[in-house]
Amino acid sequence: MNKRFLALAAAVAAISMIGWAQAPAGSQPATSNVRGAEYPRVSPDGKVTFHLSAPTAQKVQLQPGDASGGNGLGTGPFDMVKDEKGVWSVTITPIMPGFHYYWFLVDGVMANDPGSETYFGYNRQTSGVEVPESGVDYQLAKDVPHGEVRMHWYHSKVTGLWRRAQIYFPPGYDADQKTRFPVLYLQHGGGEDETGWVKQGKMNFILDNLLAEKTAKPMIVVMDAGYAFKPGEAAVQTEGSNQPPAPPNHFEEVVVTDLIPMIDATYRTIADRDHRAITGLSMGSGQAVQIAFDHAELFSWVGAFSCGALQNTDANTGFNGIWKDAAAFNKKFHLLFLSAGTLERHHGWIPQLHQKLTEMGVKNTYFESPGTAHEWLNWRRAFHDFAPRLF
Amino acid sequence: MNKRFLALAAAVAAISMIGWAQAPAGSQPATSNVRGAEYPRVSPDGKVTFHLSAPTAQKVQLQPGDASGGNGLGTGPFDMVKDEKGVWSVTITPIMPGFHYYWFLVDGVMANDPGSETYFGYNRQTSGVEVPESGVDYQLAKDVPHGEVRMHWYHSKVTGLWRRAQIYFPPGYDADQKTRFPVLYLQHGGGEDETGWVKQGKMNFILDNLLAEKTAKPMIVVMDAGYAFKPGEAAVQTEGSNQPPAPPNHFEEVVVTDLIPMIDATYRTIADRDHRAITGLSMGSGQAVQIAFDHAELFSWVGAFSCGALQNTDANTGFNGIWKDAAAFNKKFHLLFLSAGTLERHHGWIPQLHQKLTEMGVKNTYFESPGTAHEWLNWRRAFHDFAPRLF
Repeated sequence: MNKRFLALAAAVAAISMIGWAQAPAGSQPATSNVRGAEYPRVSPDGKVTFHLSAPTAQKVQLQPGDASGGNGLGTGPFDMVKDEKGVWSVTITPIMPGFHYYWFLVDGVMANDPGSETYFGYNRQTSGVEVPESGVDYQLAKDVPHGEVRMHWYHSKVTGLWRRAQIYFPPGYDADQKTRFPVLYLQHGGGEDETGWVKQGKMNFILDNLLAEKTAKPMIVVMDAGYAFKPGEAAVQTEGSNQPPAPPNHFEEVVVTDLIPMIDATYRTIADRDHRAITGLSMGSGQAVQIAFDHAELFSWVGAFSCGALQNTDANTGFNGIWKDAAAFNKKFHLLFLSAGTLERHHGWIPQLHQKLTEMGVKNTYFESPGTAHEWLNWRRAFHDFAPRLF
Repeated sequence: MNKRFLALAAAVAAISMIGWAQAPAGSQPATSNVRGAEYPRVSPDGKVTFHLSAPTAQKVQLQPGDASGGNGLGTGPFDMVKDEKGVWSVTITPIMPGFHYYWFLVDGVMANDPGSETYFGYNRQTSGVEVPESGVDYQLAKDVPHGEVRMHWYHSKVTGLWRRAQIYFPPGYDADQKTRFPVLYLQHGGGEDETGWVKQGKMNFILDNLLAEKTAKPMIVVMDAGYAFKPGEAAVQTEGSNQPPAPPNHFEEVVVTDLIPMIDATYRTIADRDHRAITGLSMGSGQAVQIAFDHAELFSWVGAFSCGALQNTDANTGFNGIWKDAAAFNKKFHLLFLSAGTLERHHGWIPQLHQKLTEMGVKNTYFESPGTAHEWLNWRRAFHDFAPRLF
């Protein structure tokens, strides 16, 4: 009787495993789906089929995420076609592989795909689909030792609130109680949060694999949400912005006042600037370079993946002229890492800044991701290139 | 310039903080919302206002989750009313406080609320709203030491796949390397997963608070997804079920073969039956009692919150007659804990079984949650009562 109940419960849990018909030949459920969901499905030649059961809708469309610099699924929206059972479907050929945000428009209204796991982007939980890049496995969960990702709650003096960081620990951190580790602070993009680098970015599997190959040094990686508002502070209109006013963001103060001291007091870190790095993507890359250059006493390894904040940066005057004395900068910073994808608008200025800095004698590394837009495949590749250069 | 960029990015991130007008007097954004989302809002007298911007929809409704035994928001669906800007809204008075699953029906099609965090239930990521219970704070993040929740990846011999457990460690686990800890295995309900007890259940904050009060013993709590399918096994139709066929669930084998050995090999546990407990809610409670009674060599503390599997259990013959010899059972098991909410259908048989077992001389504890349905407020209360009884 009890066994039967459990079997029934398992059947309930597996409803979506049965799915609908019309799967493209050889296609597989996307790895970004929730457990057991049959759709979206990805075919061996990289086509993606989306389904939504919506018998009462008049119109259903697939809407790729509208990241600046393009979305790898294409611009959309793509009209979906209804079958006799009320299931709407469309098959598209993405422009590029990788992880792509998307959602459905049901009679024009945004709706997540129940078959997709949710991924925090655009300041909300949204759907996403993983289109495998052929020939690479650096981001997969392989048969190697795996690090852990901890959710750590801490109180912020700056905001007066509890915050939750996600922290990667390399394999063996628990077993060997003598070794101390360097620390990388790793930031997400605008509208994303501290969960992005693990869920969308697969940073834990990338680093697990690099460590197994011994091409990166074991390190602790701290991911926090790049937002910090003080209680009672009024929203302010940003000059020239067409966005709604927002309260000032005190994330830099949180990192310096709350986060770094907490990390160094709690874990076996090497608590000096020679063993502390910071990078991020998009909004987070702007925060990373700003925090590092404001606090050279804390950081000596700096990265910026797809950095919008560098668009109009003058190499001579930017960041209070930090690059003007190239020799002093080179002595102070072990690494300045810049990256861009060739299909994002950031590709317009980041290689130029790299070239200009190089001409000035400022040591810096430029990593270019071929054929990627302002999306996570870009940043996975950048992280995969960046991490082995640290420490 | 860079500062301005960061302010702009923060403004983008805070779009939803501005929200819409018409907030009920004194209402606050629900704590279950994503960062900065203004809706849903909860008023001091427990009313909840839902909003959805959907100018192109013909009809929008609020649909509470349809858990068996009722949903605390009411049955619904509740029609929402459109204003001149295309924002649909409805204010309802929930039947009871607590955490309630819900979604919108946009022209009859399920859509998550972009203002809500997502919570895994019904085999998909869905919306949820927290309606505070007045006068209690046992589940809140207080100014006490906080434990950590780790995501731990491990390979299952049973399924051939990588699995991810979530594991709670009490405050001080890292700092004191000598102490070993007892372990509780804690399971979610049908259609939920290993994230439920932290996100919906707040188990970490409940246990943090119990530990700070010294009313529970420090313990490690292991949460895993209660699904385990072997590759290539065919779906089977459950006798008498109107659900689609599903492959057999081998979760019990995963627990015994993969999970317990991994936990005991990896962490500072006390690896014997006297220091190992198992409980769960709904489907997970059926799994808990089955696993514990199949493997009395592994477990001596057993709980079952809102256990459907006990509905037709005969106290004399159930579980191979384990209760027939009351003295032997009492000697073997330190705790048998049963619970039900007075407003769920499980209240029909669980107190009866408790009474019958008590009459037979089988020591067991019955916890009743007044005024709660088959929902998380029920299980938070049960966990809060259960945890101090352990070890």
